[in-house]
Amino acid sequence: MYIPIILGTARQGRESEKVARFMLNEVKSAGIATNLLDVRDFRLPATDNSKTSPQAKKLAAAITKADAIIIVSPEYNHGYPGELKMMLDLLYEEYAGKPLGIVGVSIGPFGGARMVEQLRLVAIELQMIPIREALHFPNIQDCFDGKGMVKDEEYKKRVKKFLDKLAGYAKK
Amino acid sequence: MYIPIILGTARQGRESEKVARFMLNEVKSAGIATNLLDVRDFRLPATDNSKTSPQAKKLAAAITKADAIIIVSPEYNHGYPGELKMMLDLLYEEYAGKPLGIVGVSIGPFGGARMVEQLRLVAIELQMIPIREALHFPNIQDCFDGKGMVKDEEYKKRVKKFLDKLAGYAKK
Amino acid sequence: MYIPIILGTARQGRESEKVARFMLNEVKSAGIATNLLDVRDFRLPATDNSKTSPQAKKLAAAITKADAIIIVSPEYNHGYPGELKMMLDLLYEEYAGKPLGIVGVSIGPFGGARMVEQLRLVAIELQMIPIREALHFPNIQDCFDGKGMVKDEEYKKRVKKFLDKLAGYAKK
Amino acid sequence: MYIPIILGTARQGRESEKVARFMLNEVKSAGIATNLLDVRDFRLPATDNSKTSPQAKKLAAAITKADAIIIVSPEYNHGYPGELKMMLDLLYEEYAGKPLGIVGVSIGPFGGARMVEQLRLVAIELQMIPIREALHFPNIQDCFDGKGMVKDEEYKKRVKKFLDKLAGYAKK
Repeated sequence: MYIPIILGTARQGRESEKVARFMLNEVKSAGIATNLLDVRDFRLPATDNSKTSPQAKKLAAAITKADAIIIVSPEYNHGYPGELKMMLDLLYEEYAGKPLGIVGVSIGPFGGARMVEQLRLVAIELQMIPIREALHFPNIQDCFDGKGMVKDEEYKKRVKKFLDKLAGYAKK
Repeated sequence: MYIPIILGTARQGRESEKVARFMLNEVKSAGIATNLLDVRDFRLPATDNSKTSPQAKKLAAAITKADAIIIVSPEYNHGYPGELKMMLDLLYEEYAGKPLGIVGVSIGPFGGARMVEQLRLVAIELQMIPIREALHFPNIQDCFDGKGMVKDEEYKKRVKKFLDKLAGYAKK
Repeated sequence: MYIPIILGTARQGRESEKVARFMLNEVKSAGIATNLLDVRDFRLPATDNSKTSPQAKKLAAAITKADAIIIVSPEYNHGYPGELKMMLDLLYEEYAGKPLGIVGVSIGPFGGARMVEQLRLVAIELQMIPIREALHFPNIQDCFDGKGMVKDEEYKKRVKKFLDKLAGYAKK
Repeated sequence: MYIPIILGTARQGRESEKVARFMLNEVKSAGIATNLLDVRDFRLPATDNSKTSPQAKKLAAAITKADAIIIVSPEYNHGYPGELKMMLDLLYEEYAGKPLGIVGVSIGPFGGARMVEQLRLVAIELQMIPIREALHFPNIQDCFDGKGMVKDEEYKKRVKKFLDKLAGYAKK
């Protein structure tokens, strides 16, 4: 099974990268092949929405072979980051039928709950299957120690449940 | 009164530019000062969200003196274009209290109705006042003639009503 | 295969009933077992959310054996009818894994497109699988003749495509 | 100044009633006239959406003289309670121009954040002005003591800020 992880923010100092790396480890530990699809590596001039660009081709290759998809993203002003939307809009058919699990990140207390909702509606239009289970990392600045280790072990249980559900959909 | 018009897509061949130019004429004809804030002119490297960039400063200058704001945008996969979101996320306080009118554009039949909803929620978080009245340009490929003139005169009446409402909020 | 149709408005003079009856015929014609779950038959005192009520039990019986679900509903003020939400909130586990197709109805031009979005988010929380394909009946007052026959035959093709997709998810 | 408080759930054992009563006290303490509009008192047979019903007339009288509106509501399955939507749908013009502040309540950790988003979109269509500031009561079962007093005094500061903003809009 292969479940790539999209990191949806390109900002300098992005806290969500810690979450993405944590997820990467957990997915590997669960025996699932994975890798990071960093939005920084899929940027195009905004005038170019070409599916023939190297970025679009690289994304298409990963999505096509994926059994499911994980998106790790912060919430910016109740929505998704623009660079994440531009990346997702590069493809269409490739997403069809792929289960999607969303991991929300926020400085504040709600862990990206509103971004998750907006992103789910985009995902349905892209023919993905957004699952009910979401992971939320509120107060992100307090979640990880200096070595990138999650402080609250409870998160590992939540990730396990999340991956079980996602893999369950992927097997259908 | 000054109401700038944000054009929210940077894609090549963007149909929404026709709508933005039409709106520009109509707003001027109504005796309201306006200009186009083209998302193409506000692009930054995605890693840079600095409010000290020339792009952010230019946007801040326009928004600060605006009495209200119009956004013309297509709907991409039920959401807003990523480049529009990146542009809006450049600022925060400057938007406070500004009435917002949204003009949706689509190839299909619904004129961006779903994008309007997602964008309204972002606008509320930015402390804007999204008004009920929206303009919709469905089947955009059939809306304008070769000279950029709107085919259905009905649109001019709708724009007038839209501007009356928007200006009404701006005066409060 | 069994796909029940929920009619989501209880209002007098409801135009959506015509759509629900049309859908009922089309689903039957496709060789799929179906019946109407009329929200009028699932009303409870608002103080009573008991899963042990006859209404909740009746709904649970239908949903449990369903292979997929169709909801036909108008859009009221950009959202779903309250009586539909109360009906859906009667159950929880029973919906898990059921593909959902939504049919939107409106007096205006957008065929309930915004209601569909709000309802999809509720459906995900209920563990349903909302499919990308939706059916839209805008300008509903002009859609059917005096005998309840749909005027534009194009709708039958759209229903067929919608059912093919929904049945496809149901078989997984 | 008069700001009524709508209590949006009719369920037995509703925790949101504690929040509504707390808000009622705080609004009064701020020198603003208020009263509770309990959704239980505005229920109609679902078949009856008549604006001539006693319930609709009573609601219209309160909304018409309101300078702003507060809605206290739980989140059910990521949306608003059906009975709240039915109550709001009773009127239309009466809401025009009224600032709206939403208070979200939840058993879980997000304090109704997703319900707030869906309700804001309904409110815009009703021509209300939903303000950015929202109040959230997550983990509601732990928020109040046996006498209905809020345990965390921080909430009183948040309510004050919320009311200042809401009253500020109301004065325009």
